Amino acid sequence: MKMRAARMYGYHEPLRLETIPVADVGPEEVRIKVGGAGMCRTDYQLIEGYFRAALPLEFPATPGHEVAGWVAGVGKNVPRSAGLVEGDQVVVSGGWGDGSCRQCHGGDEQVCAHGRWVGFGPHGGYAEYLPVHYRYLIKIPSQPGLSPDVLAPLTDAGVTPYRGIKKLVAAGAVGPGRTLAVIGAGGLGVYAVQYAKLLGAGATVVALARSDEKLAVAKTNGADHVVNTRGRSAAEVGEQLRRLTGRAELDAIIDCVGAEDSVQMGFALLATQGAFVSVGLVGNRIDIPLFPFVGREFSFFGSFWGNYNDLSEVMALAQEGRIKHTVKRVKFEDINTNIAALGQGELVGRAVIVFD
Amino acid sequence: MKMRAARMYGYHEPLRLETIPVADVGPEEVRIKVGGAGMCRTDYQLIEGYFRAALPLEFPATPGHEVAGWVAGVGKNVPRSAGLVEGDQVVVSGGWGDGSCRQCHGGDEQVCAHGRWVGFGPHGGYAEYLPVHYRYLIKIPSQPGLSPDVLAPLTDAGVTPYRGIKKLVAAGAVGPGRTLAVIGAGGLGVYAVQYAKLLGAGATVVALARSDEKLAVAKTNGADHVVNTRGRSAAEVGEQLRRLTGRAELDAIIDCVGAEDSVQMGFALLATQGAFVSVGLVGNRIDIPLFPFVGREFSFFGSFWGNYNDLSEVMALAQEGRIKHTVKRVKFEDINTNIAALGQGELVGRAVIVFD
Amino acid sequence: MKMRAARMYGYHEPLRLETIPVADVGPEEVRIKVGGAGMCRTDYQLIEGYFRAALPLEFPATPGHEVAGWVAGVGKNVPRSAGLVEGDQVVVSGGWGDGSCRQCHGGDEQVCAHGRWVGFGPHGGYAEYLPVHYRYLIKIPSQPGLSPDVLAPLTDAGVTPYRGIKKLVAAGAVGPGRTLAVIGAGGLGVYAVQYAKLLGAGATVVALARSDEKLAVAKTNGADHVVNTRGRSAAEVGEQLRRLTGRAELDAIIDCVGAEDSVQMGFALLATQGAFVSVGLVGNRIDIPLFPFVGREFSFFGSFWGNYNDLSEVMALAQEGRIKHTVKRVKFEDINTNIAALGQGELVGRAVIVFD
Amino acid sequence: MKMRAARMYGYHEPLRLETIPVADVGPEEVRIKVGGAGMCRTDYQLIEGYFRAALPLEFPATPGHEVAGWVAGVGKNVPRSAGLVEGDQVVVSGGWGDGSCRQCHGGDEQVCAHGRWVGFGPHGGYAEYLPVHYRYLIKIPSQPGLSPDVLAPLTDAGVTPYRGIKKLVAAGAVGPGRTLAVIGAGGLGVYAVQYAKLLGAGATVVALARSDEKLAVAKTNGADHVVNTRGRSAAEVGEQLRRLTGRAELDAIIDCVGAEDSVQMGFALLATQGAFVSVGLVGNRIDIPLFPFVGREFSFFGSFWGNYNDLSEVMALAQEGRIKHTVKRVKFEDINTNIAALGQGELVGRAVIVFD
Repeated sequence: MKMRAARMYGYHEPLRLETIPVADVGPEEVRIKVGGAGMCRTDYQLIEGYFRAALPLEFPATPGHEVAGWVAGVGKNVPRSAGLVEGDQVVVSGGWGDGSCRQCHGGDEQVCAHGRWVGFGPHGGYAEYLPVHYRYLIKIPSQPGLSPDVLAPLTDAGVTPYRGIKKLVAAGAVGPGRTLAVIGAGGLGVYAVQYAKLLGAGATVVALARSDEKLAVAKTNGADHVVNTRGRSAAEVGEQLRRLTGRAELDAIIDCVGAEDSVQMGFALLATQGAFVSVGLVGNRIDIPLFPFVGREFSFFGSFWGNYNDLSEVMALAQEGRIKHTVKRVKFEDINTNIAALGQGELVGRAVIVFD
Repeated sequence: MKMRAARMYGYHEPLRLETIPVADVGPEEVRIKVGGAGMCRTDYQLIEGYFRAALPLEFPATPGHEVAGWVAGVGKNVPRSAGLVEGDQVVVSGGWGDGSCRQCHGGDEQVCAHGRWVGFGPHGGYAEYLPVHYRYLIKIPSQPGLSPDVLAPLTDAGVTPYRGIKKLVAAGAVGPGRTLAVIGAGGLGVYAVQYAKLLGAGATVVALARSDEKLAVAKTNGADHVVNTRGRSAAEVGEQLRRLTGRAELDAIIDCVGAEDSVQMGFALLATQGAFVSVGLVGNRIDIPLFPFVGREFSFFGSFWGNYNDLSEVMALAQEGRIKHTVKRVKFEDINTNIAALGQGELVGRAVIVFD
Repeated sequence: MKMRAARMYGYHEPLRLETIPVADVGPEEVRIKVGGAGMCRTDYQLIEGYFRAALPLEFPATPGHEVAGWVAGVGKNVPRSAGLVEGDQVVVSGGWGDGSCRQCHGGDEQVCAHGRWVGFGPHGGYAEYLPVHYRYLIKIPSQPGLSPDVLAPLTDAGVTPYRGIKKLVAAGAVGPGRTLAVIGAGGLGVYAVQYAKLLGAGATVVALARSDEKLAVAKTNGADHVVNTRGRSAAEVGEQLRRLTGRAELDAIIDCVGAEDSVQMGFALLATQGAFVSVGLVGNRIDIPLFPFVGREFSFFGSFWGNYNDLSEVMALAQEGRIKHTVKRVKFEDINTNIAALGQGELVGRAVIVFD
Repeated sequence: MKMRAARMYGYHEPLRLETIPVADVGPEEVRIKVGGAGMCRTDYQLIEGYFRAALPLEFPATPGHEVAGWVAGVGKNVPRSAGLVEGDQVVVSGGWGDGSCRQCHGGDEQVCAHGRWVGFGPHGGYAEYLPVHYRYLIKIPSQPGLSPDVLAPLTDAGVTPYRGIKKLVAAGAVGPGRTLAVIGAGGLGVYAVQYAKLLGAGATVVALARSDEKLAVAKTNGADHVVNTRGRSAAEVGEQLRRLTGRAELDAIIDCVGAEDSVQMGFALLATQGAFVSVGLVGNRIDIPLFPFVGREFSFFGSFWGNYNDLSEVMALAQEGRIKHTVKRVKFEDINTNIAALGQGELVGRAVIVFD
């Protein structure tokens, strides 16, 4: 059995579009026929060698870490209680730990020090089929509007802000009468605003970003207020918050950007005992004053991707029709063109590879 | 200065409707002009002597623990930062601790072992004015639809299920893909269903009660599904849940009834690692099996009334128009008639005394 | 390769002591040479058919769910990062989930609805060898005093109260100035008292039991105070607590008994906002009043066995020499005699099978 | 009635040692006869005008925010349940909120935006008597070794690291098999090491500091290991940690220093999903990389002083003899000399003013 696959043979070069044999499926694995593979900016970075040191690859390697599709074969030791049969629509939870550490045994396999990630090695979603251990599959019964192309981006872009906002909730920082801000209204931010409304327990939701166009999407996705921060100081943004919400401060913030100044602005606006969670990674520096951090008792959390249960919850929301998607379908032969576009930030909405 | 007051001079006898002097206001107190005083079944019980042993009264005593109104005088030591001036609309957080114990210093004054409760002593809302320490007031700027008569019941009936549901949230028992059930659709349940939707973070909300009429209100207030449990076994209710939600089990339950069989039915339906919170007190017995409690790792919480911050959050929801009210205005001269009706459970919606 | 094994061929009959082939080891499994297999009252119950309905067995079945030993073979797919090589001393975390449910993906495989438990099926510790998936092994470097016979009981009797006390800690119920009580001073209680001191963050630890002999062990294991409850009412026990601790109430309780009256006495002594965790299962009934449960805001948790991380933590304590053990070594040929003794509650300390 | 008092009449000038009238006591206040007033580096800063902008003073002002003594008068409205009578030994919880905000109503008055702090206004412990609202007193029955001079420093230096470590515990970052580090072994650090052992639930405790002399004290106070970090890189410190604990990483860190490089070193050593709490304030900058913060899911908490319940818990530990003190008694007439010494960091142990 053969399949199409787009594979890396080295860094800084286009993927090779090939026809190769479909991989065997181990006794506890399931063969997935890919129905949608999200194209993430991380894929561009992978190809350009950003992770070369931290995550060395053996070539050929197949990218694609946002994967949804259908079951096309079930290993003989997959337990019946997993409930997986041929034809089932599934998504892949992509962080796979080694099953030995505290993180794995607490369910947070995505931060396992010895883990593997789908699409960062031999098998990824840029191919028609791939084998996945049954543990990492979530079944999504077919329903109108929930095809693999819209599901695939939820496995990374969709789940990352979800986990972040859960940390704000767990910190006790949201609720009625409080303000929850989403910094950034791009790939992660468009989802974050939606979760902020769903999980905020009545908190007022404000989106902060530098583009009116993106803020318009945030508004459509449920933000109570939007603030364009381009060229504005924290004090000026605070004033606008006061006009909009009655208070110049924010009780909870999710930063989907991660630039040095987005972190600074967030902390400058944070209220006493407020909480801030970082999921964005545009920059690599936190540079904020210590006095208010201590004196006002701030809490600050890093949040990375999502674990299986996080993704299950996102999928439950999707099944109830509570998540809005913005997806652009990409053909196999157009993969390299779209990777270039990712590098230039030119894509509107999420590009998802489909194999028609 | 004189005022009307309905006061107890003994147990088992009608309140005396009198004209008496308005009480003085201490330096840290605020005089409240009562705009609405909720009539709660507890008031009937107070008059009938149910709490005689636990809460002995000195007569005359003025009932009324659900109080909203306006500021009509501010003691000289009330701090400016409290932001209270004559004419402000306020509600009263009614559990007043002695300020000495762990509970008081954690904010849970309503469970202070040496506390006092408004309306369970000399001053309550069944009078035109009462003095309240400024610490226990929450200011509610005037807005259409938010008069003291609708606010008053929120200070007990409205806040009690709110606190209960917060405990389910804190226990990690709600979220997308889970089912949160409200048992009872009466005075507390009608609010509980609304909070379940607001705080449930995407959980499916089911109301369980014995009256189709009440369940219709629960449905109007946002319940995703309703189940009439009258004459049904837990297994039968489970089957109906399976048809409605796809699962026969419940992940989180708030019991607004508190009868022996409501507790039993709830635990019979609870899923592994599920959470149950009791706020209702119709009965006085918990009689459930231990094996599933341990083997399935249930969590069970008692929740009593609400503290100041709980009530502030409920008020924030009210100010955003997110709470539906069902209130019947009662005149001063009709108080005794309505107490009798409370005793017989004849009232529809919440009766609230207004002094016109 | 052959081995000795004590196997069930039916209920209510002695185990057959046999010589049978050693089981093959799957690619992700590890062969364990048993160095100690704890004999637990549950084994007696298993043989007597107590769990017949809930956990039907296929015969022959090998009991033994408290297993420690040495690695004697490693499957070819066991990851290097698991760090397991022939000869390593290991213990077995015995609750094995199906890897599909929320509980499994949160690490609580011991409560998986579709799980298996070591010693409740074909392979258990009553045999010289058994295969175990590498995920469930914890490596314990050799050190004086830490042989498999003392380690084995920690995998059930030792970890069960540990998890229970962690729930009391997580509930915020312990700390300086508070009293943490252990009800029962038998198999679980002797460990519970030790964890109470280690995890109680300065809480005063009181052991309650009906036997002066057992209370003496509790005292040796670190209890600050002991109270013999035989024939005493809750009020009388409260009075003695007042004399010993200055307060008649308890802030946190772990019940290692689980009798109807141990639950009742515990709740009768519980302080406002106190927490109670049940791990013992002598009885099957919870029968307590609802009013104080709600009015004093009690929290009540069921806690079952322990998960992998719980057991890892217990093992860390053992490695630091912070756990006292009381173990009696039992020879293979004496297994049936000791099972009978278990049934009659005659054993002092934990009986552990060793294969010499 | 007259008393001695050391008061500020301006910034940058010695306190004036005067004899002035004892202040009146309000109806809810208690007169405290000062038995010990801790001299804190903050007092030097106060006098030098560091807080001029944030906390403007009216002169004359009496410093002294670490206060212990005896009840010498009880206001007429102090409730009987407060249990305060003349002669009682008490300590003062020094952060006094306005009773209006969420923080106050949650018990965290020390971070109230409109709060007052004892010793930062008209009344402080540098005088023989001061009035304190009864809410802020904790009674400590007399016992050998617990006089006001050793108790006073616990109200700030002693409670600040306690609260910080509680945050690490609440974050789930401590426990058996984990390493909890205390950075700094000075005024706060000497206490922090002790709490680390008491609250660490079996965690290995490591003290990091730049002075062997201070590390020797940390060792005496219970640190399992000590590491002198002077002139060492994080990698070098990690190597030493590996030799001492078997791991190069830290799971939980309390930074009692707060210098730019102490924060950096801490985060460089923090393990995946580790937690860091800042209580020290030597510097005013946090400058750390974002990638590991997100990718390894760090948690970072600011913690300020302590609230009433925190201090009650510290006092419970003191009463059980579980806290070691290092106190130097200072006479009234030597106050100015000692303030100069504070400024130069010359004091060994805590200087405490006593009025003999």
